[in-house]
Amino acid sequence: MQMREEFPFFAAHPELIYLDSAATSQKPQAVLTALTAYYRDSNANVHRGLYTLAYNTTERYEAIRAQVAAFMHAPEAANIVFTRGTTDGLNLVAQSFGPQVVGPGSEILVSGAEHHSNFIPWQQLAKRTGATFRVAPVTPSGDLDESALLRSITPQTKLVAVAAVTNVAGTRVDVAKIAQAVHAVGGYLVVDGAQEVPHLPVDVSATDADFYAWSGHKVFGPTGIGVLYGKSTLLSAMPPVQFGGEMIDEVQDAESTWAPVPLKFEAGTPNIAGIYGLGAALTWLGQQDRGAMAAHEAELVTALRTGLSEIPGITLYGSAASVAIVSFNLAGVHPHDLATFLDEQHIAVRAGHHCAQPLMARLGVPATVRASFGPYNTAADVTALTTAVATAGRFFHGTH
Amino acid sequence: MQMREEFPFFAAHPELIYLDSAATSQKPQAVLTALTAYYRDSNANVHRGLYTLAYNTTERYEAIRAQVAAFMHAPEAANIVFTRGTTDGLNLVAQSFGPQVVGPGSEILVSGAEHHSNFIPWQQLAKRTGATFRVAPVTPSGDLDESALLRSITPQTKLVAVAAVTNVAGTRVDVAKIAQAVHAVGGYLVVDGAQEVPHLPVDVSATDADFYAWSGHKVFGPTGIGVLYGKSTLLSAMPPVQFGGEMIDEVQDAESTWAPVPLKFEAGTPNIAGIYGLGAALTWLGQQDRGAMAAHEAELVTALRTGLSEIPGITLYGSAASVAIVSFNLAGVHPHDLATFLDEQHIAVRAGHHCAQPLMARLGVPATVRASFGPYNTAADVTALTTAVATAGRFFHGTH
Repeated sequence: MQMREEFPFFAAHPELIYLDSAATSQKPQAVLTALTAYYRDSNANVHRGLYTLAYNTTERYEAIRAQVAAFMHAPEAANIVFTRGTTDGLNLVAQSFGPQVVGPGSEILVSGAEHHSNFIPWQQLAKRTGATFRVAPVTPSGDLDESALLRSITPQTKLVAVAAVTNVAGTRVDVAKIAQAVHAVGGYLVVDGAQEVPHLPVDVSATDADFYAWSGHKVFGPTGIGVLYGKSTLLSAMPPVQFGGEMIDEVQDAESTWAPVPLKFEAGTPNIAGIYGLGAALTWLGQQDRGAMAAHEAELVTALRTGLSEIPGITLYGSAASVAIVSFNLAGVHPHDLATFLDEQHIAVRAGHHCAQPLMARLGVPATVRASFGPYNTAADVTALTTAVATAGRFFHGTH
Repeated sequence: MQMREEFPFFAAHPELIYLDSAATSQKPQAVLTALTAYYRDSNANVHRGLYTLAYNTTERYEAIRAQVAAFMHAPEAANIVFTRGTTDGLNLVAQSFGPQVVGPGSEILVSGAEHHSNFIPWQQLAKRTGATFRVAPVTPSGDLDESALLRSITPQTKLVAVAAVTNVAGTRVDVAKIAQAVHAVGGYLVVDGAQEVPHLPVDVSATDADFYAWSGHKVFGPTGIGVLYGKSTLLSAMPPVQFGGEMIDEVQDAESTWAPVPLKFEAGTPNIAGIYGLGAALTWLGQQDRGAMAAHEAELVTALRTGLSEIPGITLYGSAASVAIVSFNLAGVHPHDLATFLDEQHIAVRAGHHCAQPLMARLGVPATVRASFGPYNTAADVTALTTAVATAGRFFHGTH
């Protein structure tokens, strides 16, 4: 596939079949070039310097914020807070916004299919504030059960936290529908977008999510950079969670006041190079045919599910509609052993609880094997995996 | 100077005199190479994958943690928490450790020369906990007054937060002496090392600081990565401040338990590339003659102070012992105007409050001009600056 040539990783690993893009995506040359160019041409601290270099870097930094806003269809750049990643963004909301809206008698609702980063912050917020923490059921296949989640919303529900696409089964939910239901009872919706942004267009204005967090490194960008979208009225009323440079208005011995959003939430020198790299990643993404990418990834999911389903002893999680993720187990073989076997065939898949122990408990398994796709994966990758899993089945089941 | 050739930034900006390394340092080619090599050769998520690539990346990630520990003379790798930067590290201590040791009747002591990131977290911690927030005086030159700080320690002092080297005047303090005095009253010492680590050897075991935070981007490394050193007994007893992947032991619907330190404090995918870059920066630094670097920077400080002191209307802050920083003002000229004038001569200095408004209030000025050095600066840079400031003096004072 032509696209692979844009990713230096694949040239460096001609033998490797990389099926772990849900953990982290590979990066196009454009992103590596942007990082190197940043340090060579533009390296200066932002929002502080009066000299031309620092001024230009600050301008570019803020232009990327506007680019991110446009990418997500956010009303304005000030809706965009740069974070370290999805986890950082979700924790920011839990720490700063959480106590403003929940307390004794109110409910926080999550699904049983959430990643730990969209589960524990709310569990712990409930503990701190005396709110009730509720976990909506999942389907037997490990999918987030959208209907069950909607039914679990009550007049006491003040916060719902949900993944737009889940990280084990790749379940996509209708964020707009959930937002509407949460808003109908006066609550707020926090969306973990980590597994949606790499694959599908995001429009926070259309879905009306209150907060939406994602990570650059899963969207062809650098590590250590993420995005939190928040509605302006909410962000403006929230207290900062970290204190330091850039986030202040005035500091006196006895009192301090804060800068307006978004700088209020960006204490300290930001990951400037990371933000340049994120900008390059979104520019690269904007040059692709995203509909074709999504269709290609859907074909890979279908092909893999079909191929795996023919292997004796396979359990498939998720559904044919799973977004770029296929989780499975092979009867009698521990997922870790299967992953190790596949590694020997140069196939990189993830095995484990995928930071989703509550889901594993519901599925009654300690772990699954997960293959996940980027646009650079090919039908040949799928064939290699299904062939290797079939071989593993014969090997472990002693029928080879 | 030979060293400049290792920094691609200077080749790209042959005309620029960069005197803002206290804001962010430039990066040697070795760091850029490490970043590109990471994404090309090693990009995989850490602590999660069972495949060879992820395993190797995790090994390298943890080897860099050990490298950082050795660099700081920390007892073991588990003393090292990777953060986003100094601000992140200091806030982590204030949020997690702070409430364990301060409350009504106890005192938090900082100096009046602190950067906002080592001032506001403690001011706000005092507000939240009912502790008293005390600010030790500075000298008339804007130096941190070590004697005054020591005298301000009382039996009620539970936390002292101090910069090892201050960011406006470049004052170096005797961290070991302060640690001893704080420990004598049963308190704890938190050190902001952002301006020390780039210039001087750090030995946390010798100084006995309880916490020590610094930023990679000021030490020739990438943006978005920092280090928090903490004593093992303290880190182990502290609660996590962010929740998500990697920092857990077990997650159930009702309860979660945490991983041991340091992973307990590293929720979410870390800035893996940033950590690779930091490792490369420390390796590069280890190859330099650090004694010669420090002596060179001290010579630049002396030369600049001497040169500036001959210009009519100059006020110099700090002292001859200032570490790599010279702050000054020119009578009758706003620091911003002076910085803009210098920018027109392609000289990049910082002008402003330097995230140290409490110090500016004590000095009775809104701002200063600050020139700060890296090892790549030269005597010619100093001459260019003094010549330009003298010209500016004649220009603004109408005597040209």
